[in-house]
Amino acid sequence: MRPAPPFRRASAQVAVLYGFHAVREALTAKRRRPLSLYATPAAAARLEADCAAAGIVAKIVEPHDLDRRLGAESVHQGVLLEAEPLPALNLDTIESKSGLVLVLDQITDPHNVGAIIRTAAAFAVDALVTTERHAPELTGTLAKAASGGLEHVGIVPVVNLARALEELGELGYWRVGLDSAAPAALETAPLTSPLALVLGAEDKGLRRLTREKCDLLARLDMPGAIKSLNVSNACAVSLSLVRSRLHSGEP
Amino acid sequence: MRPAPPFRRASAQVAVLYGFHAVREALTAKRRRPLSLYATPAAAARLEADCAAAGIVAKIVEPHDLDRRLGAESVHQGVLLEAEPLPALNLDTIESKSGLVLVLDQITDPHNVGAIIRTAAAFAVDALVTTERHAPELTGTLAKAASGGLEHVGIVPVVNLARALEELGELGYWRVGLDSAAPAALETAPLTSPLALVLGAEDKGLRRLTREKCDLLARLDMPGAIKSLNVSNACAVSLSLVRSRLHSGEP
Repeated sequence: MRPAPPFRRASAQVAVLYGFHAVREALTAKRRRPLSLYATPAAAARLEADCAAAGIVAKIVEPHDLDRRLGAESVHQGVLLEAEPLPALNLDTIESKSGLVLVLDQITDPHNVGAIIRTAAAFAVDALVTTERHAPELTGTLAKAASGGLEHVGIVPVVNLARALEELGELGYWRVGLDSAAPAALETAPLTSPLALVLGAEDKGLRRLTREKCDLLARLDMPGAIKSLNVSNACAVSLSLVRSRLHSGEP
Repeated sequence: MRPAPPFRRASAQVAVLYGFHAVREALTAKRRRPLSLYATPAAAARLEADCAAAGIVAKIVEPHDLDRRLGAESVHQGVLLEAEPLPALNLDTIESKSGLVLVLDQITDPHNVGAIIRTAAAFAVDALVTTERHAPELTGTLAKAASGGLEHVGIVPVVNLARALEELGELGYWRVGLDSAAPAALETAPLTSPLALVLGAEDKGLRRLTREKCDLLARLDMPGAIKSLNVSNACAVSLSLVRSRLHSGEP
């Protein structure tokens, strides 16, 4: 029997990415150094130009090598990249382009956080602020769900979210916490740019201290029988609304 | 050793629902007859009033009974309901309230379709039209992701989606296909009510015949580096936009 490829373990020095979009975006965005790329012959052919541009040669593996490494449930699409982790940002080095920042208050599900990061990249969100603890690792399942978005959104891990919200306030951000029980509706509440949108976990919502540090709590007005959206869908609808309102120049 | 509870298999006569919101909404919306409810002592206590109102008595089980039945990965939250399937609707019996209908072109991932149904219920979508084949079953994983939304959105399964789109046209629906390569932007394209929003699978998009039966193909304009959203997020943003534009009375 052929020996298994010498896969590295995910660690503080190594991020493990799989899935076509996650891997290709990591190779082309060039925000981090690739270490080893493992690919099936078909996936290697599909990524050939991206590998050449990134200066890395794919090591050819069989699909079942990746199944064994990642679990048979993982939709790896024949490709696994070991790369350096992305550099972490600080609040005061966020480069403001869209003027939108997301703040996640202990959202732990990697599928949800990954989908949020993909959506954040699509809406050109400047940074995503997240707690160091009670947050999923920026690798594997999360990276797959982010579908390459991880390479385009600066991540700011913080020890103390309430303190980070204070700092965002000092930096001029209008801090809006999404809360399904809030009296104000996001559709009509006062908004200014730059804006930090604060999201909590679906079951728990925002913690008390997090709520207290927001300038405004607002809900999404839902006309139907179910009043709450999945958190990544709530994030997407909110970003769309906020962007449209800030661009239209309404007060 | 205690024998395992006599769980039924999912079939054309039996839908298997798990997770707190999915089960509670099925008990309270009363669109289908419950057959058996299995719950841990804690979950049974939490659902006591809903069970009484629905006229069903929970059979007490251990968490590991549900783990064994559903797989240890399933977030069953201590509760499993066997119930009759929901009645299927026809296109000509859709009750128009919001004037919005969703059409899914072979979206197969149950997490995505479940999230779409949850969002559809939140936006008061009148019905969801889906192909009978190449679509996930309306049970288990999908029902969990729909978080109760399944009880509030009429489902119209069709054999031939192109034919269904023709019928929707005859019924007066403006058929809008979401397509990231479309020249028109949903933000500015002409919209009228009632409206059918047509979504394709993330990798394949809309099939040729589906595209041909739409009155309009439109894209979501994304300002960021990643141009495509997860399909449930694209659905949520589109519904929000369409609803807001139709309500504002813009042409």
